[in-house]
Order: sequence, then C-alpha cells, then structure tokens
Amino acid sequence: MPDRRDDVRYELALASRMLANEGVLDAFGHVSLRDPADPNRFLLSRSRSPLVVEPADILEFTLDAEPVRVPTERLFAERVIHGCIYQARPDVMAVCHHHAAAVLPFCIAGVPIVPVFHLGAAGGVSIPFWDQQDEFGDTNLLVAKPEEGRSLARSLGSHVAVLMRHHGATVVGSDLPELVSRSIFMCQNAVYQLQAQLLGKVVPLTPGETKLAGSLNALPNVVGRTWEYWSHRLAEAGRMPPRPAIRKAKSRPARRSAAKGKAARGKRTRS
Amino acid sequence: MPDRRDDVRYELALASRMLANEGVLDAFGHVSLRDPADPNRFLLSRSRSPLVVEPADILEFTLDAEPVRVPTERLFAERVIHGCIYQARPDVMAVCHHHAAAVLPFCIAGVPIVPVFHLGAAGGVSIPFWDQQDEFGDTNLLVAKPEEGRSLARSLGSHVAVLMRHHGATVVGSDLPELVSRSIFMCQNAVYQLQAQLLGKVVPLTPGETKLAGSLNALPNVVGRTWEYWSHRLAEAGRMPPRPAIRKAKSRPARRSAAKGKAARGKRTRS
Amino acid sequence: MPDRRDDVRYELALASRMLANEGVLDAFGHVSLRDPADPNRFLLSRSRSPLVVEPADILEFTLDAEPVRVPTERLFAERVIHGCIYQARPDVMAVCHHHAAAVLPFCIAGVPIVPVFHLGAAGGVSIPFWDQQDEFGDTNLLVAKPEEGRSLARSLGSHVAVLMRHHGATVVGSDLPELVSRSIFMCQNAVYQLQAQLLGKVVPLTPGETKLAGSLNALPNVVGRTWEYWSHRLAEAGRMPPRPAIRKAKSRPARRSAAKGKAARGKRTRS
Amino acid sequence: MPDRRDDVRYELALASRMLANEGVLDAFGHVSLRDPADPNRFLLSRSRSPLVVEPADILEFTLDAEPVRVPTERLFAERVIHGCIYQARPDVMAVCHHHAAAVLPFCIAGVPIVPVFHLGAAGGVSIPFWDQQDEFGDTNLLVAKPEEGRSLARSLGSHVAVLMRHHGATVVGSDLPELVSRSIFMCQNAVYQLQAQLLGKVVPLTPGETKLAGSLNALPNVVGRTWEYWSHRLAEAGRMPPRPAIRKAKSRPARRSAAKGKAARGKRTRS
Repeated sequence: MPDRRDDVRYELALASRMLANEGVLDAFGHVSLRDPADPNRFLLSRSRSPLVVEPADILEFTLDAEPVRVPTERLFAERVIHGCIYQARPDVMAVCHHHAAAVLPFCIAGVPIVPVFHLGAAGGVSIPFWDQQDEFGDTNLLVAKPEEGRSLARSLGSHVAVLMRHHGATVVGSDLPELVSRSIFMCQNAVYQLQAQLLGKVVPLTPGETKLAGSLNALPNVVGRTWEYWSHRLAEAGRMPPRPAIRKAKSRPARRSAAKGKAARGKRTRS
Repeated sequence: MPDRRDDVRYELALASRMLANEGVLDAFGHVSLRDPADPNRFLLSRSRSPLVVEPADILEFTLDAEPVRVPTERLFAERVIHGCIYQARPDVMAVCHHHAAAVLPFCIAGVPIVPVFHLGAAGGVSIPFWDQQDEFGDTNLLVAKPEEGRSLARSLGSHVAVLMRHHGATVVGSDLPELVSRSIFMCQNAVYQLQAQLLGKVVPLTPGETKLAGSLNALPNVVGRTWEYWSHRLAEAGRMPPRPAIRKAKSRPARRSAAKGKAARGKRTRS
Repeated sequence: MPDRRDDVRYELALASRMLANEGVLDAFGHVSLRDPADPNRFLLSRSRSPLVVEPADILEFTLDAEPVRVPTERLFAERVIHGCIYQARPDVMAVCHHHAAAVLPFCIAGVPIVPVFHLGAAGGVSIPFWDQQDEFGDTNLLVAKPEEGRSLARSLGSHVAVLMRHHGATVVGSDLPELVSRSIFMCQNAVYQLQAQLLGKVVPLTPGETKLAGSLNALPNVVGRTWEYWSHRLAEAGRMPPRPAIRKAKSRPARRSAAKGKAARGKRTRS
Repeated sequence: MPDRRDDVRYELALASRMLANEGVLDAFGHVSLRDPADPNRFLLSRSRSPLVVEPADILEFTLDAEPVRVPTERLFAERVIHGCIYQARPDVMAVCHHHAAAVLPFCIAGVPIVPVFHLGAAGGVSIPFWDQQDEFGDTNLLVAKPEEGRSLARSLGSHVAVLMRHHGATVVGSDLPELVSRSIFMCQNAVYQLQAQLLGKVVPLTPGETKLAGSLNALPNVVGRTWEYWSHRLAEAGRMPPRPAIRKAKSRPARRSAAKGKAARGKRTRS
C-alpha cells in the first residue's frame, strides 16, 4: 500500500526536476520541504543534481541539519541553509537554493532585483542582499557552517527570497507549488529587468501593485495552470521522477502503453 | 461525420500550441476566435496553458465574456480582453493576449516598439501603450473587469496591437493565420530592435515602407509557407493537438504508420 | 539507376535544411545552386521553408529567374536575387538569402559587420550595405523586380556577402559547402561582434589576418569536419531530407535497422 | 577482455562529447589526455568534431605532436597546442582548446575574464591573454607551428587557462573531470561577467575567496555530482560514445533493454 511519505518524497523530487527543467537549477542547487508530519524535521535529497533526484534519494534531517538516520551516501555541504531557515521562519514549509543564470548578474553587480511585471511581484517589494564576506571574511562561499546559515536566515528576515553575493539565491514558500512558481517568476523578472535597463530605464511596479499582484501565483486558477504546464514540459523531456517500487507494480500496464510515445507519456502525467 | 465546429476548435487549439511552441505564449496567455457562425460569440479555451489546450477545452462565450453554457471548469479571469475587443472592433476575428519575453522589456521601460524589418511591419506604424495604473490606480494588473477590458480596447483603437505596461501585449487579426504571424513577427521585431539599439541606433522603416510591407504576412505565398513551417515544428516537437474522437476513428491506419518516427509524424501534419 | 541530377537536388535540400537547423534560415530564406551541367541555369526550390524542402521541390530556372518548365506550384517572389547574382558573378556557384537573427540588428542599426575571429574572416575584409530605399524609394522591401536584383548584385560587387537594410543578407560561395560555412560563420561573427562591443570595443582582425584566415573554411580538413558535424546535428534532429524514390528501393535494409534509434540514424548520415 | 587503454579512450571521447553537449565545443575544438601509462605521450582524436568522436578515433602522439603510428586519417593542425603544454607543464594531464561563444567576446574586446562567482573561481585569480600577432605578425590564427605552440605555452605559464585573441581559449587540468568542470565554469563565469557589466559594474571575488573557492570543483562531493549530471544530459541527448567492440559483446543484453527509451538509456549511464 502506498504510504503518504512516498507521495511527499515523489512531490519533492518532482519539484526539484521541474526547477531544473525550467533553468532555475543546474548541476547544483537543492530543494527541501519541511516534514508535513513533524515541523522539527525537513526532507532533502542526498548530494545529487536536482535533475536526477529520485524519491529514494530523499533523506530526513533535524533542523540542525543533521541526518535522522546515519547516511550511507554523501550529503549536501549546504544543508544548513535549509535547517536555519526552518528554525527562523515557522511559516516556511519549502526552501530552494539555486545559482540560476538569470540572477547571477545581479549577485555580481550588487544591483537589487525589483518587481517589473505582475508575476515578478511574487518576489515581494524588495529582496535583501547577503554577502558572506561581511561577517565571515574570505571563505569558499559555501554556506556550510551553522553560523553562516543563521546569518543568511537573519538577512532573509521576513522576505520571500535573499540574494547571495557572488553565489546565487535562496527562495522560500508556504508549499512546493508556491516555491516553484516564485523561483521561476523571480528568474523571469530578473531577465526582463536587465533587458529593460539596457533599453532605457527600469520602472518597477508600485508597492500597491506589488502587494496586489504578489499573490497571483498562489491563486488556484494559476497554480493549476502552471503546475500542469511545468509537469507537461518535464514529461515531454522524459524527465519525470520514477515512481516508488510499490507503485510501479500497480501501474505496470499503464506504463507499457505509455512507452509508445512522448505524447502518451505527457498525458500520463496529467491524469 | 466531422462537424465544422470541430474543425474550428481544432484550428484554435493548433494556433494556441503554435504560438506556445514559437515562444510567444508560455504557461500563460490565450488565443480566441470570433465564432465564424455567429459574430456575437467567441471561442476561448477553459483556463489552461495554451501548449496543452485540446479542442475539447474550447468553450463559447458571449461578447460580455459570459460562458454560453454553465461551465464545469475554471475560466480565464481575463476573458474580458477578448469580449471587449470583439465588441469594439467588428473587423477583428481573432485575439491573442500574451506575456512574451521579447516584448516585456518594452512594457517595463515604456519604450515603443517600432517596425525595424520588413516582416516586423506586421505590427503597423505604431503600437499604443496602455497602463492600467492610469485609469484604475493600483491593481493586481489582471484585466478582469469589464471596464478594464473596455479601457484596453479603447487604447487599442484601430491598431493591430497594444502593449500593456508591466504585463504584456494583446494582438488582433482578421483570421488565425494573420494573428499568429503578426504575434510572432512582432516578437522578432522587438528582439531585433533591442539589439539594434545596443549596437548603435534604431532606424525604423519609413511609414511608406511599413504600409507596403505590413501586408506581406497576409500574402498567400507567405501564409502557406509560414503555416506549414510552424505546423511542422509543432509536429516535430510532438505537440500537435489531439484530433476529436470521430476523426481518430477515420484516420486510424494513417496514425499507425505515423507512429514509426518523427519524420512520418511531421509529414502527416502537412497532408 | 540514380541520376546525377538527383544527387544535386539532394545536396541542395540538405544544405537548405542544414542552414535552417543551424539558425541561419527560418520560415524564410532560400538557397540556390548554379546548375553544374549548365552555367546558364540555376536550381532553387518552389516557395517552401528551407527546413522542409525536399529534392522533389527543386526546380530549374534561367538566369532571368524564369522557370524552365511551367510550374504548378508557387515560386519565391525573390528568385531574381539568385538570377541576377549568377549573371553578374560567373565565379559564384551557390547563393543563400536569409534573415538570420544574428545579422538583423546590424541591418537595422546600419553598423558594418567586421571580421572579429578567425572563422569570421570567411566574410571577407568588408561586407557592403545595400538599402533598397536609396534607388527605389518606399517598397515592401522584397527584391522581386529584375532591376532590384541587378541593383543588389551591383552592391555585392566582388564581395562574398551583402547586408540588406531592414531585411537580411545575401551570401555567395564557390560551392555548397563554402556557402554553408560562410553563412554560419558570418552569423557567429555577428553575435560575437555585438557582444564584444557591449563589453568594451571591437578590435577586428587585420586585413592580413583576414586574408590568411579567410580561406580556412575551404580547407579539406575543415570542410570534412564541419560538413560531418552539421549533417550529424541535422540527423540528430530527425531533419534529413528524404532520398529520391529510386534510392529508397536500394537502401531499404539499411533504413530498417536505422529505424531503431537516433544514434543509428546519426551514423547512417556519416556513411 | 577489456583493456585499460580502451577505458582511457572511452573516457576521452566521453569528455569531448560532454563539452560539446554543454556548449563549450562546437564543430571545432579538441580535448587531449596525457597517456596515463607514459608521460611522454598524449592521446588526441583524429581531425573530427568532438561531438562525434569515438574511442576508435583516438590516436597517440609524442610530445612533439607527431603521431606514434603512421596515420591513415587527417590530423588536427593545432595538435602542437597540446604537445607544447605537456612539455612545459609536467603537472598537466589534460588539455582542452575551444572557441566557446561565451569567451569569444572577451577574446575580441581584449577584456580580461575575472572570477565573479564561486564556481568561476575554477579559472584562477587571473587568466592571461595571448595574441599570436605580437610574436608572429599576420597569420591565419591557427596554432600550427611548434614555435607558436611554445609561445602559447609560455603565455599560459602556471595559470589554468589562457585566452587567445580573436580565436578562443585553452584550458588545462590535472585530470579529465577537473578539465571539464573548469572549462564549463569558465564559460558560465564569462556569461555572467558580461551581463553584470551591462547591469552596473563587475565586482570580482577577492584573491582570498578565489583561492578558497578555486578548488571547489575538485571536491569529491562536487565531482560526483557534476560528472553524473553532465553524463545524464549527454545520455538524454542520445550522444554517449559507442563502447569498444569487445564491450559490446559483454553488454549486449543491457543494450537491448536500454533501446526501449530515453529514460532507460539515461539510467544506464549512471550505473
């Protein structure tokens, strides 16, 4: 009988692969979820690129970023990013750390990302900058120590994302769909902002518009549409995560017919 | 027996997917067609990303953007864009609203898109700007109320497109092929205009050239070529809309052989 | 028995598709070849996007751009580009007219393309600009009249390419491989030149370097490598032109095994 | 029985294809490996695009860039790049010469690439520039003569890479994984640096940060993740090199099932 825990692991692998497929994550970056059954635990994969994460790779950690079971596999050095944010922000249920090409130029030039289109308002009125150099001097720029994770969480404060100088960004959400759409829309916003600046000048949304548009990405109408769209693109690319073994047994006939073509596989993911 | 209405729904799903496949539409945006059998009705899909729209998703609306039959599915919040334009512009038979990456920088910087190459003349001599803020103050930037739709239609006036500040664009056409090519060529024009400005300066077509070149995209020679090309690319990507059930029965043998490879599928779409 | 003429048509369809697959051609643009058997004739497809051109689409024209046989299909309006250049330049055996995204910004801003890397020297020391407006005033920018074609050919002079204001480019070669590589390298050169200008300043090759590097793309070592590479990418994309019917009969067994996978198909094209 | 030499040839073909698949190499460029069994020899493919290199294409050369066995195939003109660097740098085990689109703008404008994000530190604190013109005057810009190769090696000095004016770059590593990740991260760094400059100004890492972050790409945790990720993407694209014949015999059953789909092929590469 499939277990609720299996579903959660599958959804986390799916979100990881979706963000990789949409260009937010690459060889690096990671996505975590606070354990729905225990707010003092979070789920994160072993050290593996998000594009290839499987449900079976997902491990459980305490909020001190210690694995609950002794691991046999390598772990992400930066798992304190997740633990420290879950400690500091009880409202946060999901965290994504990434090095997306869209945000790196801002992380290098030190230019703030501001909301420039309605969906970009998902990043909030302002996104703080954190520079590891300020507090820790020269480092290898990984956020690997608890005090580095806590410093980053302080900089995040009550915002929905934080930019990390010379490194990338960390985004939070109240669930996986919100996290995924926020991360994607922030990247689109960054691309458009850079090009608007090249064209002339960047005119951001007003704070009032940002507040009103900021929750568009959480509307059921929008979540349904984006989740189907990104899932469909993931399935088109042949990148859906494998189902846990017990499910495989159940769905064997379906998979046999699905093997006939891309279209069929695309469909399966929408059912 | 296949119904003319089925053909119309299929063509609308095809145009939606084509525009998604060419990068004009993404998770968002929508394409509508005035009902060929009743100028006081228009056809638009339920709330779903254009890449995955199927003929069966297409519903009928009055020009007040009310569904003709009580819907069981979610509807687009912004369907008034379509209804208000069909009311104001009896010559318009098809409407596309999009957030294409190519036009967003112009929508943010407030820089006009001007015709910079012969095919870009499809956008006309000038494209007006509409800023929801002017008339409605702070909003979430969706065009969801009838008065917002009417305001947008007034700004469009007799032009072929209107840019929406911090949001995207809306394009009109006298049929689906004209709408599709106009939308694609406007995006190409925007990309080239931005890069020409980075290189030196933008020298637009003269008004005389724009008028003469503006109808190139409606020449039979050109429509035949572009429609085949965009259809072929859609088929190559495995993204053709499903045929209604009754058609499937008829074409079963053809589809069996078509399943052998991409090239075969590409061919099928041209027959 | 396969006919030499079939081979020629196949090679021309292959070159057209290669240039489309590499982003030089899109829905528009066309490639012609002077008839190897008769210098007063040239071969060009019927009006069809180069990505989908088949050997059977290739027709024969006099140098006045008149079809040798009464055509049953639509012809390109701009076939005078080819005829007028073959008349003016006996050394030219192949012509490509395109609207590549890489060159359009230069055609709009009026900024010359200069050789900025060794392979970009394939475009020669300088590439002239032709503006239809200068001689013909306001037009729809198509080069459709013999006098327009002759004017363009005069502007090309003894160069290897000519840029067309607000329109695109026309490139010539002494055979199809030279034409294909020149067209592709000119586009790469344009992209790098624009970005170098954004970074700082464009330092072109010296005239001496340009002359020495300008023939690199015709070295057997290089032609062999690029032709295999672009063919392989075309085959990977499932875009190889169909073989004429008589060939199909001969190669049936090979094709059966090739149907097993992409890799196999890739191989076939190299044999 | 599979031979250690076969494994080495396979790994070199794999690294070549990986770098092509990630956009560092295109029709041109080449990757070599110092012979693990004899430091006075190196392995390099015959003249062929790296995307299609097969283990059987890999030949052995002396450090004077002379083939150990009389070749029946064409050789790269620029193999002295590899030989001269192996002579000058006993610590170097692998060399990649490329014309990546990401670095060309820097090679044209003469602007130095500096480390702008943690992974970009893989290129070191500074990357020297070499201009063939300085010492050799007008050339065709190929590095084909021993004195040209020695000049380039002198310019490289003890750095990890050298930029070549109007031509490309050459990168070195202590093994293939380090070479591959350095080459890819340097290209990402160049793209982000250019965009950061357009946004505002480029703030590089401090020398201390560069030194500490510079070895991140050699950490086992990181090498494992990136190698799996780039291999997976190569397999997804159907571009894995063919296994030598003797291996084929052994793995026949595995390949038969792998032929069923992309996902299956992707998996195989990770086992």
